[in-house]
Amino acid sequence: MRPHVNYGMVGGDIHAFIGVVHRRAIRFDTRARLVAGCFSASSQEKNRESGEVLGLDPQRVYASYREMAQKEAARPDGIEFVSIVTPNVTHYEIAKAFLENGIHVMCEKPLCFTVAQAEELRDLAKRNRLLFGVNYSYTGYALAKVMREMVQEGKIGKVINVNAEYPQEWLLDDLHPVPGQELKLSVWRKDPAVAGISNCVGDIGSHIENFVHYVTGLRIKRLLAVTNHFGQPLDLNANILVEYENGANGAYWCSQVAAGTLNALAVRIYGDEGSLEWKQEDPDNVRYTPRGEAPRILSRGNGYLKEKAAANSQLPTGHPEGLHVAFANLYKNFITAVLMHRDGQDTDDIDFPRVEDGLNGVRFIHAVVESAKNDAKWVELM
Amino acid sequence: MRPHVNYGMVGGDIHAFIGVVHRRAIRFDTRARLVAGCFSASSQEKNRESGEVLGLDPQRVYASYREMAQKEAARPDGIEFVSIVTPNVTHYEIAKAFLENGIHVMCEKPLCFTVAQAEELRDLAKRNRLLFGVNYSYTGYALAKVMREMVQEGKIGKVINVNAEYPQEWLLDDLHPVPGQELKLSVWRKDPAVAGISNCVGDIGSHIENFVHYVTGLRIKRLLAVTNHFGQPLDLNANILVEYENGANGAYWCSQVAAGTLNALAVRIYGDEGSLEWKQEDPDNVRYTPRGEAPRILSRGNGYLKEKAAANSQLPTGHPEGLHVAFANLYKNFITAVLMHRDGQDTDDIDFPRVEDGLNGVRFIHAVVESAKNDAKWVELM
Amino acid sequence: MRPHVNYGMVGGDIHAFIGVVHRRAIRFDTRARLVAGCFSASSQEKNRESGEVLGLDPQRVYASYREMAQKEAARPDGIEFVSIVTPNVTHYEIAKAFLENGIHVMCEKPLCFTVAQAEELRDLAKRNRLLFGVNYSYTGYALAKVMREMVQEGKIGKVINVNAEYPQEWLLDDLHPVPGQELKLSVWRKDPAVAGISNCVGDIGSHIENFVHYVTGLRIKRLLAVTNHFGQPLDLNANILVEYENGANGAYWCSQVAAGTLNALAVRIYGDEGSLEWKQEDPDNVRYTPRGEAPRILSRGNGYLKEKAAANSQLPTGHPEGLHVAFANLYKNFITAVLMHRDGQDTDDIDFPRVEDGLNGVRFIHAVVESAKNDAKWVELM
Amino acid sequence: MRPHVNYGMVGGDIHAFIGVVHRRAIRFDTRARLVAGCFSASSQEKNRESGEVLGLDPQRVYASYREMAQKEAARPDGIEFVSIVTPNVTHYEIAKAFLENGIHVMCEKPLCFTVAQAEELRDLAKRNRLLFGVNYSYTGYALAKVMREMVQEGKIGKVINVNAEYPQEWLLDDLHPVPGQELKLSVWRKDPAVAGISNCVGDIGSHIENFVHYVTGLRIKRLLAVTNHFGQPLDLNANILVEYENGANGAYWCSQVAAGTLNALAVRIYGDEGSLEWKQEDPDNVRYTPRGEAPRILSRGNGYLKEKAAANSQLPTGHPEGLHVAFANLYKNFITAVLMHRDGQDTDDIDFPRVEDGLNGVRFIHAVVESAKNDAKWVELM
Repeated sequence: MRPHVNYGMVGGDIHAFIGVVHRRAIRFDTRARLVAGCFSASSQEKNRESGEVLGLDPQRVYASYREMAQKEAARPDGIEFVSIVTPNVTHYEIAKAFLENGIHVMCEKPLCFTVAQAEELRDLAKRNRLLFGVNYSYTGYALAKVMREMVQEGKIGKVINVNAEYPQEWLLDDLHPVPGQELKLSVWRKDPAVAGISNCVGDIGSHIENFVHYVTGLRIKRLLAVTNHFGQPLDLNANILVEYENGANGAYWCSQVAAGTLNALAVRIYGDEGSLEWKQEDPDNVRYTPRGEAPRILSRGNGYLKEKAAANSQLPTGHPEGLHVAFANLYKNFITAVLMHRDGQDTDDIDFPRVEDGLNGVRFIHAVVESAKNDAKWVELM
Repeated sequence: MRPHVNYGMVGGDIHAFIGVVHRRAIRFDTRARLVAGCFSASSQEKNRESGEVLGLDPQRVYASYREMAQKEAARPDGIEFVSIVTPNVTHYEIAKAFLENGIHVMCEKPLCFTVAQAEELRDLAKRNRLLFGVNYSYTGYALAKVMREMVQEGKIGKVINVNAEYPQEWLLDDLHPVPGQELKLSVWRKDPAVAGISNCVGDIGSHIENFVHYVTGLRIKRLLAVTNHFGQPLDLNANILVEYENGANGAYWCSQVAAGTLNALAVRIYGDEGSLEWKQEDPDNVRYTPRGEAPRILSRGNGYLKEKAAANSQLPTGHPEGLHVAFANLYKNFITAVLMHRDGQDTDDIDFPRVEDGLNGVRFIHAVVESAKNDAKWVELM
Repeated sequence: MRPHVNYGMVGGDIHAFIGVVHRRAIRFDTRARLVAGCFSASSQEKNRESGEVLGLDPQRVYASYREMAQKEAARPDGIEFVSIVTPNVTHYEIAKAFLENGIHVMCEKPLCFTVAQAEELRDLAKRNRLLFGVNYSYTGYALAKVMREMVQEGKIGKVINVNAEYPQEWLLDDLHPVPGQELKLSVWRKDPAVAGISNCVGDIGSHIENFVHYVTGLRIKRLLAVTNHFGQPLDLNANILVEYENGANGAYWCSQVAAGTLNALAVRIYGDEGSLEWKQEDPDNVRYTPRGEAPRILSRGNGYLKEKAAANSQLPTGHPEGLHVAFANLYKNFITAVLMHRDGQDTDDIDFPRVEDGLNGVRFIHAVVESAKNDAKWVELM
Repeated sequence: MRPHVNYGMVGGDIHAFIGVVHRRAIRFDTRARLVAGCFSASSQEKNRESGEVLGLDPQRVYASYREMAQKEAARPDGIEFVSIVTPNVTHYEIAKAFLENGIHVMCEKPLCFTVAQAEELRDLAKRNRLLFGVNYSYTGYALAKVMREMVQEGKIGKVINVNAEYPQEWLLDDLHPVPGQELKLSVWRKDPAVAGISNCVGDIGSHIENFVHYVTGLRIKRLLAVTNHFGQPLDLNANILVEYENGANGAYWCSQVAAGTLNALAVRIYGDEGSLEWKQEDPDNVRYTPRGEAPRILSRGNGYLKEKAAANSQLPTGHPEGLHVAFANLYKNFITAVLMHRDGQDTDDIDFPRVEDGLNGVRFIHAVVESAKNDAKWVELM
């Protein structure tokens, strides 16, 4: 068995934020290696530069995704899967090209624009016996998996009501257009040809739909909705009532104009034997109330975690997984200092903890122990 | 200029949690590459296996850190820095060996056991004009940098009191020893020869000292302390009063036996013009109260972030940086499915969002838009 | 001018919880005096006993509310207002009787059962130029008044979305009927003849409607709703979409079967210039976010309070108004001890702070001052 | 047996906030009646006016507390207890006078200024077999009693560490004196002759001492402390380490200059079998963590409440006890409207819910039911 899975990426040049995030995420797993890419359709310069920085064989940096799909399919060491991180409007064509060439696909969400396109991709993947993932990233949180298992195990009984929401505030300024200034919406969200038939529901409402389904397993039987456009071509706010296949109801709310909210996906599942409440901005904790008992706070990494969830927890309890980034920031600055030092530059202003800090730490520990041994006498440190 | 910084690691074989975290953190920065290592002193088997999995040239997987320091120093493409993630008792000797061979050092904390050792390392680094970092990782959080800048800018005036704590609960069971069962402490924390003169203060109290100093810039002038051993050779709980160089006082508390606390480093800085409150378990938010005004919640990624802090923020506001891990979990499962698929195994039970989920999302969006266009009529989805 | 307002009460005998709460609330204001009552329609014994305990003239304890209305109207020192705290089904007739006799009315909510009855009461009060209050008690919170004034002053601009909810859990057990045991619902909530056409919406949903209207001033133009009965005659859960007169939308949810929620009225008002968030279970704080700024926490009693709100704040900031009850508990136990002491009983087990506690407090203060004066030396207290 | 306990008050004229609070608290219990008072030593005018407004027999409004103590002791219907709410410096003399005349005492805290005075009062009460309460009001909260019982029942095992604090911010401005403006401290807190030997520790630190003792039952064996005066005669900030009789340690912090804190008494008790955390500003909830389990939130009024605690809970769970004040505010405004109406004034601007609000509520309920019956069709309300 080959030791690694070779993969390629379409979109996500090194200046595009989302490509960076995807590549970092894949690097958490040492079993996959980036070997091919078509990182920018609009700029071959960015495409080439990205391949170089990422250490790719220049021959595997392709000018078009079609060429990439065909040539990689033909190589004995060709990619086994492609990660598609391009604008939404292009997902369908790109995914189709790779599927037709026998390559597994992981695609950003939303999958595509029409139900017919989505069904075609589903059928094509099935026919070619290929894996097709869609990047609903919030279901990757360990506690999403904990909640899913708790529901499956009957911990909250039959679901009887769901209340879920995803408010943001970042487009609120667009309700106050300033003459001569572009709306934030203008980037690509105003134009149905680029954004599809919906802005807010498509972008974030669809996360509510997917997350609730993931946790509860329930399918929506029917829904009704009101949306608010506030003078724009597409929706910025939506209130939705749903009815699930089991007869229960739920209410979903998504908004990009809710002052005081950042990225506040929050899901509350009420069953006839208990409830679960979870917030994306506090992803490591879930509030679980069994019927007739006090609410309890379950945290990622504790014994409450089931086996599958534990497998998705990458730091001990109480350590937010963003701590990876704190470590990364520290090393980033250190690496910067190493590079500057190499060039003979002064590195005193670079922000990382130094040996002097380590020395202070040792002094502190010794002072505490000395004081404690001497009935809490003062110990001088300076 | 060479495009990358070559680095090596001492300790942290692929089965050791802490090595994984450090390597992941370094991989956030594409400018550094792991090219050498002495991953395990006790097992050449683990050492060799780690080098192989990490894709290293076998000649650069060394049996001893001394050999590694000397041979890497002699190579034209030798490592520029070493990351030391070995047990605390070994830091001093290893760091010294690399410094003596002209290699920058990033060392896990605590730096070493005695003040004399720490001073020697400091002096050696200075003499050899080498960088020496110590891994006080919590100062890597973007909001640690925000707070530091706010203090420097006088946002809270002169510091007049500090209240900081770092309670954990994970050793509480050791107060209830079960005959025949090992204490959790027994791993290495009971033995001063391995753990140094302090267990709790050394391990976590030193984080309080460093973090408060980082944010406030204040040095401790003197301190007094009581510690509690609860029958063990080393401390499990400590209460400390400090006096800073500016005359203000502070109280520090650290504990490994505080039920209901996970990894609850929390720091509150009170100045004569305002205050800052921050919790490690909620690292993206800080509560800031200017004198005479209402408390406000500042979040990573918002406009409140200063330039330096923005440089240390790797996801947009409202997205906990642990979202990187959610992405990673999703890809990990997908990669597993790709490997299983390669071997002809059934992948239906592997947990990642699939094209059917994407199809449901498209259906949901279309149903919402159709209902909203028709005055909130019900739209069937099944 | 007479120094006091005389008032009477219908319902609320001394064993009925709600009468106690109303009388306590009125006693906060020394300008009103209870002088008449018809405390129990079903038991003249309870009626008489209540009058006696409450210190009323026995001639003003009436067997029927009609007699009370007529006789009090005829007295020169008759009641000026009546407080009606009887079951909902009786409100209409009783209120009408007092209005017809020229007496102001304060009535528990919901006002009555049909729109026609409510309109009749409104018209009757208007015709007779009488005051008619309805006890929507949550609007009495000081912060409800703060929010109302902030909306009126334009602090959040035009309202563009409302999200309000009132979940409770106390009827969840009724979804799991135990043979031979009465449902909690059975008391009076199952029977439309007693409860009216709705259980959950009538009881708590109506608080959402009133509270949002109070704070925003907006009227609902139209609404649509789904309710869930879970096999009972009346609703236990409801999801409602509303459209206000200004075109904005809102979603309301109320439930009596939501595990993990107590009495969790929560209201979030989003405007195009900011937002307000408030929870009944934390009534002294409101989260206010002006557009483009950090959220801030405003607390009752602080300078943020407007004049009208300050007039409705009865304790300083940081002192929950429930502190009145802590004081009351302390006195209650002390009064109990006084009564027992009068009878020669032992009072050692009665729970109130004693002179020995006061002595300990004085010792503590002296020890702290002595230690601080002596450079933090230990001071013995035992 | 006489149906009521007669009591008197020293201090607390009707313009003094604290007298109002005490009288309201006593009125929660219908067994006690105010019949005598010496409400103001400095103004006989205020004294007389207070008696009149409170409905007292003018002969029982006394010019001096000594006369009151003697004359009430001589009456067959004399007071059984006195509530002393005068400035701290006078407590000792007044309490002594009533004890010498055989009258029970409830005294505001701190009890008095010297240990000798406190011991004398204790001995005098004991000798005369009288009750002597001290108003440590926070122990009156129902959850204080819940925690005390949980500790007594061994729910958290042996106490091994305590962390308690009481920060406030209200004197922070005094660190920034404005020429020509009085300090807030100046009222009476700067002068040891009036305030005693301590300002901050005496006023609020003593609450920490009492509350922790109440909950844990532990006595302090010894303590050490640092205080900060910031240029004032008395302390404004204190950090204290304590050692309890059982060998455990604790840290107390109190401050009147901590920006962003209101009245933030918070107590955390760590035992070897679990922990309890409680905040005065959220008095109805306690966070309880049994060793090895998830933290749970216990709320006043739930089944977790013990018998004694239930007796001290005066509203159902989820209803903050400050709801009494919301009711009171509503009635206060209504009573104001009644008085204005009596005088022919316009009452339209008086803020209380009216019959029109009741009508809206009925309309809302009907609309919801109608919509729900008709498959969520829109129902018009305007």
